[in-house]
Amino acid sequence: MPTLPLGIDSERVVRELWSLAEISDCPDPPPAVTRVVFTETDRRARALLGGWLRDAGLEVRVDPIGNTFARWEGSDPGLAAILTGSHIDAIPHSGMYDGTVGVLGGLEAIRALRRAGIRPRRSIELVVFTSEEPTRFAVGCTGSRALAGLLDPLALRGLRDEAGDDYDVVRTRAGYQGGLETIALGPDRYSAFVELHIEQGPELESTGVDIGVVTAIAAPATYVITVEGEGGHAGAVLMPKRHDALCAAADMVTMVESIAKSSPSPDLVATVGQLQVHPGAINSIPNRVRMTLDIRDIDGAIRDAVVTRIEQSIAEISRLRGVKTTVDCLHADPPATCDPGIVDAIEEACEAAGKSSTRMISRAYHDALFMARLAPVSMIFIPCRGGISHRPDEFSTPDQIAAGIEVLARVLACQSMAD
Amino acid sequence: MPTLPLGIDSERVVRELWSLAEISDCPDPPPAVTRVVFTETDRRARALLGGWLRDAGLEVRVDPIGNTFARWEGSDPGLAAILTGSHIDAIPHSGMYDGTVGVLGGLEAIRALRRAGIRPRRSIELVVFTSEEPTRFAVGCTGSRALAGLLDPLALRGLRDEAGDDYDVVRTRAGYQGGLETIALGPDRYSAFVELHIEQGPELESTGVDIGVVTAIAAPATYVITVEGEGGHAGAVLMPKRHDALCAAADMVTMVESIAKSSPSPDLVATVGQLQVHPGAINSIPNRVRMTLDIRDIDGAIRDAVVTRIEQSIAEISRLRGVKTTVDCLHADPPATCDPGIVDAIEEACEAAGKSSTRMISRAYHDALFMARLAPVSMIFIPCRGGISHRPDEFSTPDQIAAGIEVLARVLACQSMAD
Repeated sequence: MPTLPLGIDSERVVRELWSLAEISDCPDPPPAVTRVVFTETDRRARALLGGWLRDAGLEVRVDPIGNTFARWEGSDPGLAAILTGSHIDAIPHSGMYDGTVGVLGGLEAIRALRRAGIRPRRSIELVVFTSEEPTRFAVGCTGSRALAGLLDPLALRGLRDEAGDDYDVVRTRAGYQGGLETIALGPDRYSAFVELHIEQGPELESTGVDIGVVTAIAAPATYVITVEGEGGHAGAVLMPKRHDALCAAADMVTMVESIAKSSPSPDLVATVGQLQVHPGAINSIPNRVRMTLDIRDIDGAIRDAVVTRIEQSIAEISRLRGVKTTVDCLHADPPATCDPGIVDAIEEACEAAGKSSTRMISRAYHDALFMARLAPVSMIFIPCRGGISHRPDEFSTPDQIAAGIEVLARVLACQSMAD
Repeated sequence: MPTLPLGIDSERVVRELWSLAEISDCPDPPPAVTRVVFTETDRRARALLGGWLRDAGLEVRVDPIGNTFARWEGSDPGLAAILTGSHIDAIPHSGMYDGTVGVLGGLEAIRALRRAGIRPRRSIELVVFTSEEPTRFAVGCTGSRALAGLLDPLALRGLRDEAGDDYDVVRTRAGYQGGLETIALGPDRYSAFVELHIEQGPELESTGVDIGVVTAIAAPATYVITVEGEGGHAGAVLMPKRHDALCAAADMVTMVESIAKSSPSPDLVATVGQLQVHPGAINSIPNRVRMTLDIRDIDGAIRDAVVTRIEQSIAEISRLRGVKTTVDCLHADPPATCDPGIVDAIEEACEAAGKSSTRMISRAYHDALFMARLAPVSMIFIPCRGGISHRPDEFSTPDQIAAGIEVLARVLACQSMAD
């Protein structure tokens, strides 16, 4: 492992972050970003990034779902490689650091190691995962799920976006050909996966620590709740006669919040992020509401117990209000535990780079959750202002980004020499 | 007034109702209908209807907002005319009778009177009002408001649809030219306005009465409520730290329902019909909600007192939840009282036609609310199945429709002879 500072070019990384942020479907200018999988905007961003990967001398491979791998061949190419990377898709009207810091940071880590004259034994690869965010098809991490063999190609083909377009039609129209069943990787491919990411929470900033070393990733689950009530004319149906789907849904939104707040686990979070009203006319009583529930805890059993309580309350509200409600699970993933060896390696790299560190859990999920099925994983977190993420004012300083890249580069160098 | 049955061709009216219902933007087939003002679908429906008006020998005039007048010249064309009519726009995924029965019924009433050899003294006109429904620009009855001189052309020019297009741009693109300030009519133009309409409530059906004679029209008001909270990552922001705009909006939805239910007036109805969540991502805490409030009572003062209570509760919820909420009034119209002479004339026509009748109020608003500023008005209600409206299963039988047309025709004939 190099002992001298690696000379991370954080100015260049910040320039690249802004260049990618310019490629956006958000009506507001950067730092606001909207970049949704398999759109023309996504294609343009990938094209720009692909050029940078090739400029860095990396060999680029794109799999049938769009996961992009850029390889720096080691001196012993037969050995399992070291993988780093993240995603560049961005939910509507969000920020420019989530995911993208891990991709551009991984690229700069590789460039820095090359400039420092490092010659890795194991190959080092950078991955750009397809659609970590669940924006378009309601399921997140489709790229890493597919790599881990957890994405049933048949189930995926049933997914549709809001326009009603089928996942596979959209995928192939975006230029990704080939069978989805060929994507999954074996457990021998990578000896480690390390993802650099902004914390998306306030802990590092508030304690003044440079680096968070992730020991576990919270278990996410997502549900679609559909409430069917009775519509009618907003002027003509008197209040006692109504079975208003939105009033029932409103009861459920506040119930979800209240159950989550009273959960014995302080880590448990539950969010209704989407809610659509049908027919959605000013003078019509809502007859149908579709909403999503995102619920997470570091303990999968606690989360599932809370989901059961919520389902019971939904049934009770539906009975009292005379509406019919269905709850469909989109995914309910177990939590991931990080590899103690990688965690130690990140802590050692922090020490060598002169950066303070603390162990923490990741409340947000990441592609690392699924890559943990394929290889030992951990994550390197850097502080972000106010703990804010998924908003245009998401921000990490160039120094914070440089610190994360420096630690990542040292971990990659060290792991690439390991047996 | 004719004493014999007028020979209403209700089969033809039902055929015409279905023909118009076929011209729809609803993904479901008729009887489901979606027909929104100034769309290509609206244009096609007006073109079909315009042909029928001319086939009936009527002289057609279209004003700069699209209100369409079809005139049957009386023997004394200098006298104020009798006006009947309604609207053919339909809210998303609604039914085929609301409004359209009044337009096609008015047309058939005129055809029946001609077949019966009636020669009116005062001219009889049929009007098709532009956008009784508030679907596209959030303000209902723009056509009749403009006729009554209640639509400020400058304010109208500030209205935008969901696509962000300006009212006036959309209007002129749809082919309606000319200054909006030229639309308003004087009080001498019409001696009476009588609108035939389905009840949109259950009273006539449940009591087995043929015709409702409307004595007053409830006072509608519409507001836009915007809640600004704090967004963030659905995984990373712990529950006690949140200022979720949707949770606050959900509190407001149930509060509105509860205040409306506990109002001393049984006629008071309040509805949140639209609710949009921003950014609307599964894994993002809602930072903004926009919703509409439609509130009505036959007594304008009671309605306004309830609005005040709702505004106070919104302020209290906003304070407790740490969100910022604004309430903007789109319109708050006074109720209309119908003309006793026209009410009597409708009752006499019912008797002559052998139809039972009852006096009632209209909880839904109609163009008659605004035409009351220009002329003595009343409305003729016919039963509709289950009191259902603004839904695809909205339905009145051919016999119920024929009874309404027969009564309307007799009122038109009688009023056209009056001094």
